[in-house]
Amino acid sequence: MSMSNETIEKLIDQAGVSIISSVDEEGFPNTKAMLPPRKRVGIKEFYFTTNTSSMRVKQYCKNGKACIYFFDKRFFRGVMLIGAMEVLTDQKTKDMIWCEGDAMYYPLGVTDPDYCVLKFSAHKMRIYQNFKSETVDI
Amino acid sequence: MSMSNETIEKLIDQAGVSIISSVDEEGFPNTKAMLPPRKRVGIKEFYFTTNTSSMRVKQYCKNGKACIYFFDKRFFRGVMLIGAMEVLTDQKTKDMIWCEGDAMYYPLGVTDPDYCVLKFSAHKMRIYQNFKSETVDI
Repeated sequence: MSMSNETIEKLIDQAGVSIISSVDEEGFPNTKAMLPPRKRVGIKEFYFTTNTSSMRVKQYCKNGKACIYFFDKRFFRGVMLIGAMEVLTDQKTKDMIWCEGDAMYYPLGVTDPDYCVLKFSAHKMRIYQNFKSETVDI
Repeated sequence: MSMSNETIEKLIDQAGVSIISSVDEEGFPNTKAMLPPRKRVGIKEFYFTTNTSSMRVKQYCKNGKACIYFFDKRFFRGVMLIGAMEVLTDQKTKDMIWCEGDAMYYPLGVTDPDYCVLKFSAHKMRIYQNFKSETVDI
């Protein structure tokens, strides 16, 4: 029942939304929908833009344990990636990820201190399809 | 920027999918898309059907800390509810939640030992809209 990496990457690219989860200070999972990753390297590394002042950033600074999830509602398929989330605020990474339209969210532009990058590194994956699941190391 | 309970309930009922998160044994958040809740009591209690043999059930038996999340992609709105998830296997609850079509997933019917109920009780809520968030106790 395996899904090829090609199919997984297609599912991720077509999902239209990224579901990002963290663990809060009281040990509860916290979940949020975010824009699709701005950049990804296969199914191993994912980069997202976000607000430095956000609750999610605070949580990831304290506890980098994370999962990101993409799903295809029509076909009841989903891919959960488990791994580590890093909060990157160095200008080189911010420059790499920045797009023109981002100024709408970060009025001070690419050097806006409220603009930062979330980098997710996957080490395990769980695939759902045909009402069954399978865990795969990455 | 508050959202009325009526608007929140509408968002939940129209989301079409429930995003359910747990915390695994290694402390990582785990997220999955599930069918809409089979029953809900306001924004306080939610009932879902699931497989007793599923990984999520195993996780919730060990650690009931949970969040459920509903979002409206078009309007960039979302509601995250934080609370406790219980795994219910008593026949009374299973009878309450059972629907005809469920036999497709649980061939042994309403007494199928692989059919059980997840009951979520919310105690905190986080609302996202207009690129801003707000936490509310329930």
